[in-house]
Amino acid sequence: MRGIVAGLLAALALAPAAFAQAPTSTPTGPLSIESQGSFFVGGRDIASEDLSTLPAYAPAGTITVDQMYVQYQIPAGGTAATPVVLIHGCCLTGTTWETTPDGRMGWAEYFTRRGQPTYVVDQVRRGRSAGDPSGVNAVRKGAPVERLPTVFSASHESAWAIFRFGTAFPQTFPDLHPDRGPGRVLEADGARLPRLDADAEPDRPGAGGARAEAAGRGAHQPFAIRHLPLPDRGAGDQGGGRDHLGRARRLPGCGRRPRTLSRHPDHGAVRRLRGAIPRWAPRLVACRAFVEKVNAAGGKASLVVLPDQGIRGNSHMLMQDRNNLQIAGMLVDWMKANVKR
Amino acid sequence: MRGIVAGLLAALALAPAAFAQAPTSTPTGPLSIESQGSFFVGGRDIASEDLSTLPAYAPAGTITVDQMYVQYQIPAGGTAATPVVLIHGCCLTGTTWETTPDGRMGWAEYFTRRGQPTYVVDQVRRGRSAGDPSGVNAVRKGAPVERLPTVFSASHESAWAIFRFGTAFPQTFPDLHPDRGPGRVLEADGARLPRLDADAEPDRPGAGGARAEAAGRGAHQPFAIRHLPLPDRGAGDQGGGRDHLGRARRLPGCGRRPRTLSRHPDHGAVRRLRGAIPRWAPRLVACRAFVEKVNAAGGKASLVVLPDQGIRGNSHMLMQDRNNLQIAGMLVDWMKANVKR
Repeated sequence: MRGIVAGLLAALALAPAAFAQAPTSTPTGPLSIESQGSFFVGGRDIASEDLSTLPAYAPAGTITVDQMYVQYQIPAGGTAATPVVLIHGCCLTGTTWETTPDGRMGWAEYFTRRGQPTYVVDQVRRGRSAGDPSGVNAVRKGAPVERLPTVFSASHESAWAIFRFGTAFPQTFPDLHPDRGPGRVLEADGARLPRLDADAEPDRPGAGGARAEAAGRGAHQPFAIRHLPLPDRGAGDQGGGRDHLGRARRLPGCGRRPRTLSRHPDHGAVRRLRGAIPRWAPRLVACRAFVEKVNAAGGKASLVVLPDQGIRGNSHMLMQDRNNLQIAGMLVDWMKANVKR
Repeated sequence: MRGIVAGLLAALALAPAAFAQAPTSTPTGPLSIESQGSFFVGGRDIASEDLSTLPAYAPAGTITVDQMYVQYQIPAGGTAATPVVLIHGCCLTGTTWETTPDGRMGWAEYFTRRGQPTYVVDQVRRGRSAGDPSGVNAVRKGAPVERLPTVFSASHESAWAIFRFGTAFPQTFPDLHPDRGPGRVLEADGARLPRLDADAEPDRPGAGGARAEAAGRGAHQPFAIRHLPLPDRGAGDQGGGRDHLGRARRLPGCGRRPRTLSRHPDHGAVRRLRGAIPRWAPRLVACRAFVEKVNAAGGKASLVVLPDQGIRGNSHMLMQDRNNLQIAGMLVDWMKANVKR
């Protein structure tokens, strides 16, 4: 495997306008899987005296932490296609890419149905990538509270604006893709906002390496990340915590001139006064600067602002919006046309 | 859907000896999936003032807790077949049923390939079934340590004996299925022992309901649990915390006369002095008593002790042992012959 598409989607090298015209229909019929499964990458063993406060389980021993869970599907005939690694953001898990909250097909299955080997991760210390109970148990046994891990959940109310469903919970933007009604979001999205059980430092040591190792180990081949897609992110992104160029450079195997695509859904632009979320406006500015910086350094980066392409009403969670497969389809079409392995 | 097989496998009604002769080969070739996806069941909304201690995330708001994550695959042509719900035990997640630590096919895919709609859950507050950070954050802000959740991990060392890989880490039983060598277990099984992030009460309120709702909602039909399979468990099982008959009666829709199968792998029997793990010997005794109790009450329960069937060397984690598909195959064969929907 010479190249791998990391993150959400691939780099946009040519006319962004081609995106808007891409035809996309929901794939139907049986899905034929060549192979599927899961594995863990990365991780380190630690010794702890505080694994348990229950008599039935020993407090002292060794556990593995900072490993990352990866689940994958390789479609029949897709062994030679460029793999896609889907990496969720803050406060979420790999469920981000599965069935949407209202029960439609998610991006993971869609990419697979379009012929791409697809890898979904739970980032370190979230979801099935287990954490470490030692801090909690140590404090329970008398250690200072500073030993407690920094854990937090995004509430329904705070996620509402961050995800750009509306300016204030539970109102939605008038043009929001309407399947995401308040009741639906409350019922289902809440259950899809798992607690972020990680220290405050989002990019834990080794997390980038674990991400990168994921697809390589799944395919049992060495690999290099050549495309770094960054949907709906900005240089000051709290979920990533770093500027994108810096992040790209830290990724193992990432070339010095990565192809990069950054995409922005609706309701984030500075100039869109109606319904703009303050959190996102500066990020779009930062994203433009990032794209310029990559290109100035000899890379090939593009920025697509969906409303500029006539695609309106998307939230931050565009992989779950009503037109989620239209957007995924544009990405697959672009990848098939532009990404060489 | 009139019936559902809950837990790991179905009830044994007829000659247990038939198990040992069941031919099983690893299914190969593309896997054809009619539909797949994930959903959440159960859960309740709680208001909290302690969701976060980070300035970027609001401390107050609503989150959903005690929901259960369910991932499913329905094989092509399998819509009418009896669904199987795979429920993991203590300190684990749904990964229990996926690819084995050494990279072979797990039970989830095997059941799917044998034509059964297969549902894999992450039990409440574990894996992708998110927890509640409120207790940790409240203590961080000054609340008494009693607010801390009871969380624990099974260490590699303690899991070693509990899972019956050997009497003491890292020695293995001489007849243990040899793919599970010490190095392999240390590397891979450790990563598959996620922290149990639950209160000490294993069967949380609503957990049984969430489990039961899982398959029903997946198939979008009401259902009843009619078969309660209990591999390698005993009446005093710490992982379940309740006696099986009581548990069966608490499961929604579970008949008063459930068909039940309890199975015991190797190295657990009282009479097997060589390599017997003290933890398990009384459970086999309790299991025999449970089977008698169910049958005395008019149910149909059987107990299979694998060594009595000539199948030796299995650990507690028989769904990951070298002969895991042989055992799964016996279960599917029995289900096809005995379970009526």
